[in-house]
Amino acid sequence: MLKKVNLKQEVNSAEGLYLYKKIGRLNGHVLSAVHVENRTLDFHVHEESDEMFFVIEGTFQLETEDGMLCVNEGEFVIVPRGTRHRPVVESLAKFMMIELEGTLNKENSGDLYEE
Amino acid sequence: MLKKVNLKQEVNSAEGLYLYKKIGRLNGHVLSAVHVENRTLDFHVHEESDEMFFVIEGTFQLETEDGMLCVNEGEFVIVPRGTRHRPVVESLAKFMMIELEGTLNKENSGDLYEE
Repeated sequence: MLKKVNLKQEVNSAEGLYLYKKIGRLNGHVLSAVHVENRTLDFHVHEESDEMFFVIEGTFQLETEDGMLCVNEGEFVIVPRGTRHRPVVESLAKFMMIELEGTLNKENSGDLYEE
Repeated sequence: MLKKVNLKQEVNSAEGLYLYKKIGRLNGHVLSAVHVENRTLDFHVHEESDEMFFVIEGTFQLETEDGMLCVNEGEFVIVPRGTRHRPVVESLAKFMMIELEGTLNKENSGDLYEE
């Protein structure tokens, strides 16, 4: 039987901050749920994959060379491959991320991405 | 500048029922928003693409050979490629769909998919 996924339940059951919980797979992509608070990643580029940030709860800023974009609950942004970016998170925010499998690693995800 | 997308605003601005509004692209996939009411599609298979249904508002039943799965607001289900399925929608439901570009057509989307 197919399994459905409740986004809020999944993100709320992640075991801690910055831990990406894999919640689905779609055509070689990984869907993951993560809580983040008070963290700014270094600028980085994903050369091989576009990256989707969907905000389940809270708000964050996506910084690119064009400036800061504030993304709120119920909104998403897709960062095209090759775009230099970094997420800037102040208060607690909960996300669903989608990108090609193999895109995230400890350097570009906040050090705690688990394979 | 990157653009953010508010899911509820996008689906509520679609011009009518059964019209798939393209709201994003991710690695060859199309993200679309659609309203559906009182419609059961014929069983069908997508041979080349997994398909994600995320419920923005309302509820629907996804029917497969294993039975019916009720998917509610804030939940998603991913139908693996090759899986015979059909959505069964009674009262108004609003979705985000993600699948490889070229997957949907008039026969498998409720007759009104616009290229």
